[in-house]
Amino acid sequence: MRLFYTLCPLFAVITSLSLSAATLSVTSPDGNIALTLDDSNLTYQVQFHGQPVIAPSKLGFRFLQLPAIASGYKITQHSRSSVNQSWQQPWGERETVVDQHNELTVTLKHPQRKAPFTLRFKLFNDGLGFRYEVPQQGVAKLDIIDELTEFRLSDSKQTTAWWIPGRGWNRYEMLYRTTALNEVDRAHTPFTFKLPSGVHLSIHEAALVDFAAMVLDQQRDGVLKSDLTPWSDGIRVKTNGSFTTPWRTIQIADSAVGLLNSDLILNLNEPNKLGDVSWVKPGKYAGIWWGMHLGSQTWGSGPKHGATTANTKAYIDFAAQNGFDGVLVEGWNTGWDGEWFLNGEVFNFTTPYPDFDLAAVTAYGATKGVKLVGHHETSGHISNYEAQMAAAYDLYAKHGVSQIKTGYVADGGQATRIDENGIERKEWHDGQLMVNHYLYSVTEAAKRQISINTHEPIKDTGLRRTYPNWISREGARGQEYNAWGSPPNPPEHTAMLPFTRMLSGPMDYTPGIFNLAYNGLDAENRVQTTLAKELALYVVLYSPIQMVADLPEHYDAHPKAFQFIKDVPTDWAQSQALQGEVGDFVVFARQDKHSNDWYLGALTDEQARTLTVKLDFLPAGKRFTAQIYRDGKNADWRTQPYDIIIEQQSVTANDSLTLPLASSGGTAIRFKAL
Amino acid sequence: MRLFYTLCPLFAVITSLSLSAATLSVTSPDGNIALTLDDSNLTYQVQFHGQPVIAPSKLGFRFLQLPAIASGYKITQHSRSSVNQSWQQPWGERETVVDQHNELTVTLKHPQRKAPFTLRFKLFNDGLGFRYEVPQQGVAKLDIIDELTEFRLSDSKQTTAWWIPGRGWNRYEMLYRTTALNEVDRAHTPFTFKLPSGVHLSIHEAALVDFAAMVLDQQRDGVLKSDLTPWSDGIRVKTNGSFTTPWRTIQIADSAVGLLNSDLILNLNEPNKLGDVSWVKPGKYAGIWWGMHLGSQTWGSGPKHGATTANTKAYIDFAAQNGFDGVLVEGWNTGWDGEWFLNGEVFNFTTPYPDFDLAAVTAYGATKGVKLVGHHETSGHISNYEAQMAAAYDLYAKHGVSQIKTGYVADGGQATRIDENGIERKEWHDGQLMVNHYLYSVTEAAKRQISINTHEPIKDTGLRRTYPNWISREGARGQEYNAWGSPPNPPEHTAMLPFTRMLSGPMDYTPGIFNLAYNGLDAENRVQTTLAKELALYVVLYSPIQMVADLPEHYDAHPKAFQFIKDVPTDWAQSQALQGEVGDFVVFARQDKHSNDWYLGALTDEQARTLTVKLDFLPAGKRFTAQIYRDGKNADWRTQPYDIIIEQQSVTANDSLTLPLASSGGTAIRFKAL
Repeated sequence: MRLFYTLCPLFAVITSLSLSAATLSVTSPDGNIALTLDDSNLTYQVQFHGQPVIAPSKLGFRFLQLPAIASGYKITQHSRSSVNQSWQQPWGERETVVDQHNELTVTLKHPQRKAPFTLRFKLFNDGLGFRYEVPQQGVAKLDIIDELTEFRLSDSKQTTAWWIPGRGWNRYEMLYRTTALNEVDRAHTPFTFKLPSGVHLSIHEAALVDFAAMVLDQQRDGVLKSDLTPWSDGIRVKTNGSFTTPWRTIQIADSAVGLLNSDLILNLNEPNKLGDVSWVKPGKYAGIWWGMHLGSQTWGSGPKHGATTANTKAYIDFAAQNGFDGVLVEGWNTGWDGEWFLNGEVFNFTTPYPDFDLAAVTAYGATKGVKLVGHHETSGHISNYEAQMAAAYDLYAKHGVSQIKTGYVADGGQATRIDENGIERKEWHDGQLMVNHYLYSVTEAAKRQISINTHEPIKDTGLRRTYPNWISREGARGQEYNAWGSPPNPPEHTAMLPFTRMLSGPMDYTPGIFNLAYNGLDAENRVQTTLAKELALYVVLYSPIQMVADLPEHYDAHPKAFQFIKDVPTDWAQSQALQGEVGDFVVFARQDKHSNDWYLGALTDEQARTLTVKLDFLPAGKRFTAQIYRDGKNADWRTQPYDIIIEQQSVTANDSLTLPLASSGGTAIRFKAL
Repeated sequence: MRLFYTLCPLFAVITSLSLSAATLSVTSPDGNIALTLDDSNLTYQVQFHGQPVIAPSKLGFRFLQLPAIASGYKITQHSRSSVNQSWQQPWGERETVVDQHNELTVTLKHPQRKAPFTLRFKLFNDGLGFRYEVPQQGVAKLDIIDELTEFRLSDSKQTTAWWIPGRGWNRYEMLYRTTALNEVDRAHTPFTFKLPSGVHLSIHEAALVDFAAMVLDQQRDGVLKSDLTPWSDGIRVKTNGSFTTPWRTIQIADSAVGLLNSDLILNLNEPNKLGDVSWVKPGKYAGIWWGMHLGSQTWGSGPKHGATTANTKAYIDFAAQNGFDGVLVEGWNTGWDGEWFLNGEVFNFTTPYPDFDLAAVTAYGATKGVKLVGHHETSGHISNYEAQMAAAYDLYAKHGVSQIKTGYVADGGQATRIDENGIERKEWHDGQLMVNHYLYSVTEAAKRQISINTHEPIKDTGLRRTYPNWISREGARGQEYNAWGSPPNPPEHTAMLPFTRMLSGPMDYTPGIFNLAYNGLDAENRVQTTLAKELALYVVLYSPIQMVADLPEHYDAHPKAFQFIKDVPTDWAQSQALQGEVGDFVVFARQDKHSNDWYLGALTDEQARTLTVKLDFLPAGKRFTAQIYRDGKNADWRTQPYDIIIEQQSVTANDSLTLPLASSGGTAIRFKAL
């Protein structure tokens, strides 16, 4: 992996202003987005194509020990710069990321207070970010008790929002809601919405480090206010007198699909801090997992224990035969035999169950070129996990394990810690303490060249750029909800995720269930897709690691369809979202990073539809064999989910393809370069 | 006013139990409601007619300084008693209130901790209440950081909820939503819902004193958890080591109308602490108010200033001519001329505008038997208000003012205080600080024989029983929303209030607008009722003080209809809700406290409907002249809101009346005793 930077500051101006009220503006490089800061009431506003998209909205903070940063501060200095650079990802949706933006940095001071603070704005063509940089304020301890940042929308009744409720039972594992904006109470980010003009926006944050997550609280119609997730004692963020916030981000696009072709979040994160990360390996993995969700196996010990040495070796054989890189094994360590989700202290991360021989399975895997994918379910008891973390990671590293799936299932949705006085504390998983814990796990793992795939995580804010071993995470309803029913993920769910959850980064959704109506459940209580749609998920739902989620025997029934899963890569030279509407349908094309092949994934909600896709994303003048996996004529997720047509066609960039998508159907295509 | 108590403890048992897991049950006097406490995980559950209505739900608290009250505590003692008593109200929906309940008091102790705590349950035939009594825990300071009390419903998708969002811009002035329970995020109480069985419940609290309000947070499907409104520093409740909570209440009824005929909240409050309150006077008042909402007058000074001596005298004449008791004057004191809603420090509560002569208008009123109704808009700046409160109340008392409407309009929905370090704090109006402020205002006023009508209040929890000078309050969308439009209160709003907001107590809705399509607004942006429905509001929306809200000249156009407003009393010997469904329609009958006359109010949402009402609430064998004010044949709130029929009919308790209600129509009846 090369790190490649070209920094081009086109101009820089530093100006001092008087202490009277003042406004400053900055535009995106293409001039379409304009942000204006007004210090008379400390507000900002945003225009797009000359039309207001964010009405004048407050900025600021309240503190426990000091007066607020709010109105009363005046602009004293500002500077501007323009940047046009590109940088390379070790893995990702694309190898080279362009970072072109205009920056405005503003220093503000209150006449009665000593210390100033800085607002830094970066305007890109696809949105903007701003953050607060608050230098030492002359106190040893500065507790943030409220963030005043607002995002004001002017027509909340005519604005459509796609969102999940914030706070509460907060593993983000909720179905996205489609409502008028004024029906939102409190929402997690990314928070995606469409103005009456058709302009799409998404509010989120970038580089969430040593801070609390920003939840959006609709304080009154159209006024979304930052509601920082508090510690258990009610303080929002604890600082030593100075702090820099995450970037508050607003993606802005003329259409829904415009939100998808954006690197805004990554561009607002710091470059790779880990140096050579060639040890971070994208790839596909099978695993001992789905059987537990179906109930045919158990995490705990006993006759149905899944994580046995024998089962693991069989999975290693399956992975080796099909070219997969890893085998995940859940339930291998002691602690699973009681109500573990009520008390994570039961887990021991270095003691396998007697029927699981860690040395034997990793040695066996090594002979087959298949890695064991580690697993640590913490039940959210972070005191217990942190106490064992070094030994647990050392153990895995010693046996060649280079990737761990961590889990934070916790009854009530809060993590547990034992504080310095021995009192049990419950902390939100997106509060400052847990934000720091999750990153601590990633940096500790990096020391041992281990990558982390966090389940029940803190939301993604693009930290994969800075810590490329944070290889994936969950953070939304994944495939496992389809095992439990009541209700499974509805047809629109995977048409919703790209425009919402996945604007934040990769998701370990674990696609590829082939036994769609397992377990004798009725039509409603199973995977609500066609077989072709399960294939399309590998292209649509980006993750550098993708699971081959079903039981090996279920792939035997559909060997031709299984070929696509064997072929599809998980690392890309480039990616383009081609078409889509939030929650309705979406089409992605991606180029394999290690060949000239391209892949396409298209999927729809419950509405069958036929899409025409121009192939002009392919390189001109080249001929490809399109290996098409599409819904058959009678395909329908309820009645004929297995009706699939697999066919080939010779195409060039001048061609178009017609994609007939069944109800909750999809199309997956490999464009094999000739 | 007499206070009349008969305390009848039928039996009392005190039992000591071993420290093993135990359950205890208690039932309502009629045996229909049963509550069971289980100490194995510190949960309670509730059955109604033998069917579960509240599934096992957690109890407890988390503290900053001590380990939690949660599972681990064991029942060590309990006692039981039964009470059947009645008591009298100085004013109210009924003169005599029956308090019949069974009580279970349980002491629980943790084996590793010194201090026990007590749970007290009271089961009535119409619901239950329970509270925590936590004696001194051996610490000088005990901060509550979370309340763990849950209300678990088993079928959230099939349960219908009527609710307003909790927290946020929280003056409770939001339209009630009708959704499946699982679509609720966070809701204020009273929170009303209907189970699939048709059973109606309402969760609320009683006797909220020196504590934070309980908001309900749906942590996961069907689990409503207490979410105590925090102080600005994040602490939920600050105590000195011991505390007693408000009662957590659950009203339970077979039908919607059953929720309305309940005195549960009052019965859980402490008796009158003020002694002789004969100086608290129910009644009707006109006022200088609606003109400001319409924009024809102003609160601030200038040519359109409403609160002039001359205008006030004219209103006093109007009130005297029509038998009304008071005249409210808003905008009489200095502070209204800038952006007062951003900074309540501008208000001076003892300095009238130069064109308002307080002494002159009160003296003039005295000659006519009409009182000035005082007004204090604080803009939520409670430091400013508390600093002036004594002088302000003294001034009014000196001039014979015996009732004050207070206001807490505050931009952002939070009150302002300046703390001991001079730092400005923003506090939720339903946090502990404001709960204490509102009651402080009431007790300070009581010292001067002044009654308080709080607008932008803390929600009602029945404290009028203990402090009868807390005569009314707002706490929901009132009539003023009909002046502003965008949108006004929809037809269902006043059919929703009795089943939601008004389960907590009286509301100063300010009914009686007769110019329904004022100001040239279109059909949507005005009062969305018929004229007859405006009359019905006086009976349906109980308050001991009722405004005659429109401009005097607007009553001139409808003198016959106006007669009902002149006749209708505001204090009742008894009240009965006869029919109703939440948000659809409702019928109340009430008997005048000072005569043998009865009154009936019926109203409907946008759906026209014909109701048949049996008059068996009237005393048998007596004949009444029913003076009926009903919608005419062509009445419709959109097209013919003024179509009203006023007719008389001789009736007895054996008769029925057919009430044809137009779209957003109503019926008002005076049954004049012969």
